[in-house]
Amino acid sequence: MRALRWHGRGDLRLEEVPEPPEPGPGQAIVEVAYSGICGTDLHEYRHGPNLIRTGPHPLTGLAPPFTLGHEFSGRVVALGGEVPGIGVGTRVAVDPCLRCGVCRWCRHGEYHICAKGGSLGLAADGAFAPLVTVPAEGLVPIPDGVSDRLAALAEPLAVGLHAVRRAAVQPGDHVLLLGAGPIGVAALLALKLAGAAGIYVSEPVPERARCAAELGATEVFDPGRTDVRREVFLRTGRVGPDVVVEATGLPELAELAVTTVRRGGRAVLAGISGGSASLPLTQIVPFERTVLGSLGYNFDIPRVLELIATARLDPSPLLTGVYPLARGLDAFGELGSRHHLKILLAPEER
Amino acid sequence: MRALRWHGRGDLRLEEVPEPPEPGPGQAIVEVAYSGICGTDLHEYRHGPNLIRTGPHPLTGLAPPFTLGHEFSGRVVALGGEVPGIGVGTRVAVDPCLRCGVCRWCRHGEYHICAKGGSLGLAADGAFAPLVTVPAEGLVPIPDGVSDRLAALAEPLAVGLHAVRRAAVQPGDHVLLLGAGPIGVAALLALKLAGAAGIYVSEPVPERARCAAELGATEVFDPGRTDVRREVFLRTGRVGPDVVVEATGLPELAELAVTTVRRGGRAVLAGISGGSASLPLTQIVPFERTVLGSLGYNFDIPRVLELIATARLDPSPLLTGVYPLARGLDAFGELGSRHHLKILLAPEER
Ligand SMILES: [Zn+2]
Ligand SMILES: [Zn+2]
Ligand SMILES: [Zn+2]
Ligand SMILES: [Zn+2]
Repeated sequence: MRALRWHGRGDLRLEEVPEPPEPGPGQAIVEVAYSGICGTDLHEYRHGPNLIRTGPHPLTGLAPPFTLGHEFSGRVVALGGEVPGIGVGTRVAVDPCLRCGVCRWCRHGEYHICAKGGSLGLAADGAFAPLVTVPAEGLVPIPDGVSDRLAALAEPLAVGLHAVRRAAVQPGDHVLLLGAGPIGVAALLALKLAGAAGIYVSEPVPERARCAAELGATEVFDPGRTDVRREVFLRTGRVGPDVVVEATGLPELAELAVTTVRRGGRAVLAGISGGSASLPLTQIVPFERTVLGSLGYNFDIPRVLELIATARLDPSPLLTGVYPLARGLDAFGELGSRHHLKILLAPEER
Repeated sequence: MRALRWHGRGDLRLEEVPEPPEPGPGQAIVEVAYSGICGTDLHEYRHGPNLIRTGPHPLTGLAPPFTLGHEFSGRVVALGGEVPGIGVGTRVAVDPCLRCGVCRWCRHGEYHICAKGGSLGLAADGAFAPLVTVPAEGLVPIPDGVSDRLAALAEPLAVGLHAVRRAAVQPGDHVLLLGAGPIGVAALLALKLAGAAGIYVSEPVPERARCAAELGATEVFDPGRTDVRREVFLRTGRVGPDVVVEATGLPELAELAVTTVRRGGRAVLAGISGGSASLPLTQIVPFERTVLGSLGYNFDIPRVLELIATARLDPSPLLTGVYPLARGLDAFGELGSRHHLKILLAPEER
């Protein structure tokens, strides 16, 4: 079968690989319907290795090259054991987290911060291929009425939902969202669901700013032209936002988040990048602020699918392109233009 | 009357001042029984001005010199209006927070982070004097059976209790406490009340380390001789503590707190100093840690008094000396030796 594989920085190859072997116990094989390109994938391609390890991964023992792709939907074609509610033929989205299963965090259900954790598509072969081997515990049935395309968006949506849940956003809260890329848009949709009364967005890219406005942002600021801290301060009665969600991973925006949230407020940092940054202590203690790291998702993919199925969440604005897997390299180039939010790759013409 | 007043760095004077005028509406006069010397007071004396403003304070309009003293007990001798449950003669501890009463935080009961807030003894005359004018909303009746001396310890105890409540410590949690000074000991007592299963303490001063051990710390480490992060990691099954409480205000210990707490754990920063520090972003997001600023107390002084009255909390180990106010300057010198935890000043011989 043909797969899109990461060999190194700037070196993505569409190449022939063997089909996966029969699934072992606790494994399943999924025939991929759609698999989204993540900002992480683009970052690994352009600037990596970042999350990808060049040597053997401590959990999987595997080393690159890896087939990328961790945001996907498809159909179970083989099962290595019984899985409640799942059979051959079940349509599924997949939680791509790999976990050790025995560490303190796995045992407590906090598999997303497993001491050895990794992800399909970054620490093992992913879903930019017709078939992918997945851990059975990651299988999530797709509710009737939710298309394969929208189900493939569940993973990035889960990142936004998780951040909003981490911040415990309440109905009536005022929120500043930093960034309206895919994670930012996912957070925006979750903030609307959480009943936020004011959702201010900071986003420099005009297309993304427009998208955020269309999706219901109260107001969108261009941080290149506006003092976002001051404008949101004024619009919240000189108080500041109850919550700031940082969804870019830019270190300087983490600092902006912490210094912009109101006294006693919560800054949730949901963006990851290879960079490092510092947070000012004097802005945290005397103002009794809370800083919350937010990593990926934790059982949030089924939540997202249920919200889509019950028409509470419409993720379709996130989807800006679908390419056949054979044109995957073109799609990577397109995504880099930033006019796109999420591009799905389809391993076969459908 | 004679009062101990801050005129500037290194310039504390015991001097004659007028007695306070009749209390205005919302004010009361308290005859001081005991008033503790805070690390803040010592810091203002040696290195200030830090929290003291040299110009008029934005809330009170007052400028130094100020009579210091914000941790005190006494007896109401005059009231500028009716206060439920309080009359002339009522024994009281006092919440010394000054507040504007109208900002978003005051209106929500979060008076401790009032936008203009200050404190008696730092932004207005305090309790190193026989009489002190206080805001009526700060009066807290002392339950029967709680002595004036122990009641004067309620304020620093409230700082420790507030930090433990901020961190939402649960029975069975493992906690690392950085520092066993007055706030650290207060936090230690609160951690015991909260049912922490393991309380590890890092404290370099031998007398303080011994005190922490006597008060029930699971183990006390000398950070000069021990890799505290590693030792606590090993003693928690290679997990790390659920909670770290930073009770020194040393910037480098705030960083230690954030990098030592387990994945998914809570680092509460309860120490304040004039210094600034940075917190590593890469230690927060990928490990989904939470960093909580904790400032002073918020309705915690009545909680402390009730805990003392019901014999759940015995603060007496905190009290290491009582001096007459006339010897206040000597007491400041003694406190600096760090053999002491809390020294109370008594305005008159009793
Ligand atoms: Zn992703
Ligand atoms: Zn694990
Ligand atoms: Zn104090
Ligand atoms: Zn106020």
